[in-house]
Amino acid sequence: MDRPLIFITNDDGYQAKGLRCLIDMMRPLGRILVVAPEVGQSGKSHAITMSQPIYMRLVEEDDDVTIYTCSGTPVDCVKVTFDYLLKDQRLPDLALSGINHGANSGVNVLYSGTMGAAMEESFYNIPTVGVSLLSHDEDADFSSIPSFVLPIIERVMRGEAGIPVCLNINVPDLPHGQIRGVKFCRQTRGFWREDFEKRQDPRGRDYYWLSGYFVNTEPDAVDTDEWALKNDYIAVVPVQVDQTNYTQLRQLQAWNTQCSE
Amino acid sequence: MDRPLIFITNDDGYQAKGLRCLIDMMRPLGRILVVAPEVGQSGKSHAITMSQPIYMRLVEEDDDVTIYTCSGTPVDCVKVTFDYLLKDQRLPDLALSGINHGANSGVNVLYSGTMGAAMEESFYNIPTVGVSLLSHDEDADFSSIPSFVLPIIERVMRGEAGIPVCLNINVPDLPHGQIRGVKFCRQTRGFWREDFEKRQDPRGRDYYWLSGYFVNTEPDAVDTDEWALKNDYIAVVPVQVDQTNYTQLRQLQAWNTQCSE
Repeated sequence: MDRPLIFITNDDGYQAKGLRCLIDMMRPLGRILVVAPEVGQSGKSHAITMSQPIYMRLVEEDDDVTIYTCSGTPVDCVKVTFDYLLKDQRLPDLALSGINHGANSGVNVLYSGTMGAAMEESFYNIPTVGVSLLSHDEDADFSSIPSFVLPIIERVMRGEAGIPVCLNINVPDLPHGQIRGVKFCRQTRGFWREDFEKRQDPRGRDYYWLSGYFVNTEPDAVDTDEWALKNDYIAVVPVQVDQTNYTQLRQLQAWNTQCSE
Repeated sequence: MDRPLIFITNDDGYQAKGLRCLIDMMRPLGRILVVAPEVGQSGKSHAITMSQPIYMRLVEEDDDVTIYTCSGTPVDCVKVTFDYLLKDQRLPDLALSGINHGANSGVNVLYSGTMGAAMEESFYNIPTVGVSLLSHDEDADFSSIPSFVLPIIERVMRGEAGIPVCLNINVPDLPHGQIRGVKFCRQTRGFWREDFEKRQDPRGRDYYWLSGYFVNTEPDAVDTDEWALKNDYIAVVPVQVDQTNYTQLRQLQAWNTQCSE
């Protein structure tokens, strides 16, 4: 079998429509291996399961597509695939995460289980792409994605973006004809603020629901993913694992560190 | 009350010895507000709790120290503090996370609940520091930390590192006299590989435990946090929120994007 092997995971769980659409989109390009969470794992970031064991379950298998579920986080799905299922075997030629139901633009990349998994995939030195649609609807319409996103994935798969590479692709929730194209851009600066909703449980204890909104601290910048999405473009941000702030590092190195040798 | 207000959280839970040591270390510098996880939340990264409500509980309160627990993740602890408990009130003058029982150097910064919380704290434009000791021992010895780390925290608190700032400080598990000083350095390149341990539960189902080891892909580099720690220095890495890979972005922007206007 010389067909390419394509690994897919997500954070909405193995039954999510976005995952099924990504499988269908990639099916012509190779054999598909899916290991996806048993249940939704939105907001799980790069979390791993340390205090509980991980269960797996084979739920579908034919010549083209194999699907396992995993009881853990999206990053657990990646680890159990590469370091257990595929251990000492040929690595996938491409690793994907998505299609996520909801935006992972801007600082969402930090909270996102979809992008946590994509970054973890990139540790295996294979081309890696995370894809998200700006709709939380369970029955969202993913039909405008393939004609824009598949050409990018194919170039990444051919190695044209180099290795390691981890792209964060966000797609506006628009009909195909209204999407104006693709912009390669940087992560928008900003943060979330929460309006905690306070309620009382039947036993009289207060509890709180997270319910936040994104604050874009550079709304006028035109080279950001938020700008691209607001202007009906697909936003593509290359993501890196190194979180060192080098500008600040040079400043700090000038400190008179009393404690050094 | 003009005393500085210092916020502290962690990922090992409110009863962890490392948290208690950080409280004791900071007590002379101001009033302490702690909101820490009810139970251990190691490996929770930047995860937030989206599908469950959050509970809080006041467990200690005197003139100097107030301690709440939170049922959620370390990042939830930060959000509920800044966007609920302190909403429309004066912000803390300093925000800390730790002292973590275990290393958060290198790529651990991605998986770490301690550093997830520290990065979240930095979104409130106050000086932020995460501190970790290279020992997982519940009863670890934190006594060598204050004389090295407190001077750094005091400079950060005075604004000498600028804003935003989020330092990732890792301390070798050594007696005070054996620590050679402080190095400001960059995040080491590398990744974790897992040896999944397969077991069977009493009902005959297979399950797996994560149990990995770190692979340093640049063992000879001398400007990394792993090098500093291996050579008995305290490692300080300034961490940033922007995960854009700008070198790769410039390459991608040269792609002939068929789909643009």
